[in-house]
Amino acid sequence: MNLRVPGPTPCPEEILQSGAQQMINHRGPEFAEIMFRVHSGLQKIFQTENDILLLTASGTAAMEAAIVNTLSPGDRILGVTIGVFGDRFCQVAEAYGADLVKLQSPLGSAVDPDSVKAVLESDPAIKAVAITHNETSTGVTNDLEAVCRVVKSYDKLLLVDAISSLGCIPLETDGWGCDVVMTASQKGFIVPPGLAFVSVSPRAWAASKQATMPRFYLDFSRHLNSFQRGQTPWTPAVSVFMALDRALDIMLDEGMSAIYERHARLARMTREGIKALGLELFAQNEEYASNTVTAVKVPADLEAKVLLDTLRTKHGVVLAGGQGPVMEGKVFRVGHLGYVTEEDIHGVLQALELTLPRI
Amino acid sequence: MNLRVPGPTPCPEEILQSGAQQMINHRGPEFAEIMFRVHSGLQKIFQTENDILLLTASGTAAMEAAIVNTLSPGDRILGVTIGVFGDRFCQVAEAYGADLVKLQSPLGSAVDPDSVKAVLESDPAIKAVAITHNETSTGVTNDLEAVCRVVKSYDKLLLVDAISSLGCIPLETDGWGCDVVMTASQKGFIVPPGLAFVSVSPRAWAASKQATMPRFYLDFSRHLNSFQRGQTPWTPAVSVFMALDRALDIMLDEGMSAIYERHARLARMTREGIKALGLELFAQNEEYASNTVTAVKVPADLEAKVLLDTLRTKHGVVLAGGQGPVMEGKVFRVGHLGYVTEEDIHGVLQALELTLPRI
Repeated sequence: MNLRVPGPTPCPEEILQSGAQQMINHRGPEFAEIMFRVHSGLQKIFQTENDILLLTASGTAAMEAAIVNTLSPGDRILGVTIGVFGDRFCQVAEAYGADLVKLQSPLGSAVDPDSVKAVLESDPAIKAVAITHNETSTGVTNDLEAVCRVVKSYDKLLLVDAISSLGCIPLETDGWGCDVVMTASQKGFIVPPGLAFVSVSPRAWAASKQATMPRFYLDFSRHLNSFQRGQTPWTPAVSVFMALDRALDIMLDEGMSAIYERHARLARMTREGIKALGLELFAQNEEYASNTVTAVKVPADLEAKVLLDTLRTKHGVVLAGGQGPVMEGKVFRVGHLGYVTEEDIHGVLQALELTLPRI
Repeated sequence: MNLRVPGPTPCPEEILQSGAQQMINHRGPEFAEIMFRVHSGLQKIFQTENDILLLTASGTAAMEAAIVNTLSPGDRILGVTIGVFGDRFCQVAEAYGADLVKLQSPLGSAVDPDSVKAVLESDPAIKAVAITHNETSTGVTNDLEAVCRVVKSYDKLLLVDAISSLGCIPLETDGWGCDVVMTASQKGFIVPPGLAFVSVSPRAWAASKQATMPRFYLDFSRHLNSFQRGQTPWTPAVSVFMALDRALDIMLDEGMSAIYERHARLARMTREGIKALGLELFAQNEEYASNTVTAVKVPADLEAKVLLDTLRTKHGVVLAGGQGPVMEGKVFRVGHLGYVTEEDIHGVLQALELTLPRI
């Protein structure tokens, strides 16, 4: 199968085999070695000196962790959303009683940093800003660096969902002043799902001391305490840790610049191929089209489900549909993140070419 | 290594290899097949017709899920604790604002069902009871069936931590009237950690409709909605699902009666061997000593850390120390749950025999 959904990414065989090693004691010295090594590799990729906490959970739990560890019920937060995942960040904040101000951009577009500025200027009570770096549902990447500049100029706490960007698209955690950055193992890190990574700046630690939203499993301070001993507070997904340990070596061997460049190149190749087939990108402007996932408009005379089923059953190509009630049937999506080569993208485009006229 | 901690259990090679299969789309038909098959296998082992939700998380998150989905802040809950894990259940309830009544038995003992009865009789405001089936920190198993009878006669919601018992020690979810039962993949299920399983009775579903504790990642209703389509609401630990799929076949092939009998037999063998070495069980009464983990008192002239290090480095036997500030240094623990044979226990006892006089 040519699995080209925006996560889980396929994994190199040697990473899968690393994850198939026999279990070890997660309170013993072997695990502690893995833990410290993995932490240091993650810091390089996050471009940060902040603590990075490893949660046995998926990305959504990391979003929840970012909210509940830094805010109290009633705290005002600006949720910048350009799609399903931005909306999810907002829903989490509301579920825990934050006072949400939502800044919504039209689907298919990126946020205009000036509109973030306008909200922050007009509403000084805002304490934190939550933003999606790369919106998986629409295939759009926000200009995070520009938004960070705005948010930092107003001295707000900055929570960044980098789940489908980190390790694929440049993100400078410290350089841009991101207080909490979260991502997950099954995207850029070419590892099976099961772990989420959350970086926590000194400012976010200070916020966590004041934050009264309830938390236990996701509590940052419990994770930090255990980390001192090379442990996690609760039993971790040991096999995903082992796989990650190998994956970070492979990633750092390829080099982050090379990885960013590969993602940019394969994304361009995908977009060019899609357009050459007479299809239209969902991103309104190619300038901010994502380098990890391409959302394609479903032509009016086509049923998305039929297209995806045919690609899968006749050509072994697995793409993703639209996500959620608004996007379902409206787009299909090609994932090109993590473990992906030119050949994989060729395969997708070829299968599309063979399938499209025959439906 | 002879890994004999009370979780993670070692895993059979074929289960590790099942978990090393290439990723699949967690929103596609292959995953849905696994999901439904796994659900039906779990129902057999839980002895229930209730829904079972699969969380990508460890057991502690499942305890949190049980609390936040059934209670509102201020609801009174009786926390029955006989050790670290019972205490943890209480801490979770308090973290989310429950009104906790704690019934604590001396460490090393099981709870007396009559003392549960006395509390419920004297305090009609109690809405729910949280109890640990098997206390991993002290090596004691509560007489859950008897406690269930008491709790049900007072018509209370019953939340059972069966993390280190289910699949190893008999537990009849429906027969005994347990409303929420939680366990995790790395114990009796001979699978790597990363998944937790939570059964939810109709009564617990009704409670969840009223419960106002905040929740998102662990929200039962979101999990149930996705389950209808053979999915999870958030990206699941796909490789652990694949491993579990194989493990359930292996378990049901061996047969649950045979598995219970094996655990009982190996636990007896462990206790006899420990006593023959002149060591003392931490459980005050062998009647309720656990069939999944044996806690052994550290003799006065011995340092637990030295003993465990010697066993590990000289004999390749990995045991666990005492858990938490109270138990650390006081006991060491032999796990005999999941994938364990007579030979494994022989190995432990032999290593202990060789090590004890030489320290």
